[in-house]
Amino acid sequence: MSEGWTRLGLIAGGGALPRLVAEACAAEGRLGSVIALSGFADPADYDQPTVRTIGQFGHVIRDLKAAGCDAVCFAGIVTRPDFRSFVPDLEGAKLLPRLLAAAVRGDDALLRVVIDAFESQGFQVVGADTLSSSLLATEGRIGGDAVMEPHQGDIAKAMQIAAAIGVIDAGQGAVVCDGLVLALEAQEGTDAMLRRVAELPENIRGIKGSPRGVLAKRPKPQQERRIDLPVVGVATVERAAAAGLAGIAVEAGAALILGREAVDEAARRHGIFVIGIKPGS
Amino acid sequence: MSEGWTRLGLIAGGGALPRLVAEACAAEGRLGSVIALSGFADPADYDQPTVRTIGQFGHVIRDLKAAGCDAVCFAGIVTRPDFRSFVPDLEGAKLLPRLLAAAVRGDDALLRVVIDAFESQGFQVVGADTLSSSLLATEGRIGGDAVMEPHQGDIAKAMQIAAAIGVIDAGQGAVVCDGLVLALEAQEGTDAMLRRVAELPENIRGIKGSPRGVLAKRPKPQQERRIDLPVVGVATVERAAAAGLAGIAVEAGAALILGREAVDEAARRHGIFVIGIKPGS
Repeated sequence: MSEGWTRLGLIAGGGALPRLVAEACAAEGRLGSVIALSGFADPADYDQPTVRTIGQFGHVIRDLKAAGCDAVCFAGIVTRPDFRSFVPDLEGAKLLPRLLAAAVRGDDALLRVVIDAFESQGFQVVGADTLSSSLLATEGRIGGDAVMEPHQGDIAKAMQIAAAIGVIDAGQGAVVCDGLVLALEAQEGTDAMLRRVAELPENIRGIKGSPRGVLAKRPKPQQERRIDLPVVGVATVERAAAAGLAGIAVEAGAALILGREAVDEAARRHGIFVIGIKPGS
Repeated sequence: MSEGWTRLGLIAGGGALPRLVAEACAAEGRLGSVIALSGFADPADYDQPTVRTIGQFGHVIRDLKAAGCDAVCFAGIVTRPDFRSFVPDLEGAKLLPRLLAAAVRGDDALLRVVIDAFESQGFQVVGADTLSSSLLATEGRIGGDAVMEPHQGDIAKAMQIAAAIGVIDAGQGAVVCDGLVLALEAQEGTDAMLRRVAELPENIRGIKGSPRGVLAKRPKPQQERRIDLPVVGVATVERAAAAGLAGIAVEAGAALILGREAVDEAARRHGIFVIGIKPGS
């Protein structure tokens, strides 16, 4: 791979994604530094990480430059900071007015300010999917060996509903069962949405042994795709199965699969499918 | 009032709405019969109700005709039946194929089949709002004395998001705080959505003493407005306050306020506002 950069600084949030990115990048000898964001990343997951808070923009820039990095990748879960009790360093404080102005316009606007800030310091900002090609969702069956045909209608509708709530910048996920929209995801996240589906009356959803319904996850059409692509991992498969769903659909080329073999194995074990759908199909 | 009918049959589901309808209609001497739907309505709320299951379509038709009813009103909460374990009477069984076909197209399609079935038996189907003019949400301040000006942006955006999820037939409610979409309502209902908002991180929502954010409820644009208009009652106000919200916005002329004085009193007590917004304004 050659995209015009030589050493990567990984800004790591929570979850399994950043560790997969670090491993893929280290295997190619291109990992310069890992910044483990305090309160989100587990520093024990990384070899010699630097622990920083999200307000320490100036410190992070200097860490990355000292490590010879010319590119950065943001990976993992980071929730919105409380800007009223935010403790920035000097450079972070300079960024704060732009962050506050962007925050009210939505998550995507906020991420663009962060990306701009790193780019204006000379870093190339790269997506996690470009660092490990095995992460990106492909078209067709990704996991499981469950029959998909009876669920084509729900797959199509869930993908369409997930796109519609993305257009209004509200969320990335939706659950549809027999044509009925069971749940829409906003700030609570996919896990909380799936827990809620599991609590709906059994007559409008699937149950263990008689799964029905599909979870769709796809990015907002206008979103910055180098950060915050939808993610499906083993935990997603397990929660979808617990909610009685028949399967999970993602947009091919626009979602990250955290450990393809593990996801496939979990999907088979739970009797559900994971599928990548080409946009527009 | 004269809308071409003389005696009403009230088909009562759960919640406070059907009792208010029954009282308003009885006060005018036009209440012919109350059908208390088993599992949803509390028969003790009514004077001499007939208890029926939702599968007993034929029995209900005969009950209403025997009571001299020429109109019906559906009011109160009824969740979707489990059609796989549905026990209909003979006439209910004849209706079942159309109900099943409609069910996969969404709640609105399902309600239209029910309305058609009653109309084809010669009943006029009337909305709860036409029976008690005090139920319908008016334009402007409906309840509370909280300051609304700082929340105009969230009121407008929450109304817009609620309309957008209505267009895709997914739900009637949304919560927006400082421009960020916190929650979207689907099958879980408004109460569950508000409980979830109360569990989001405090930095992205309001808290007691420093309320922020607005709940908007409005009907789906294409929906059958004689059934299933959004409802705001004292419980809605209390849950919105518990979620740290600054107020509630509904569409003027297209939402029901359950006990205007009680809603106003609850809103004042909790320091939040309830407002009716004219569509398109």
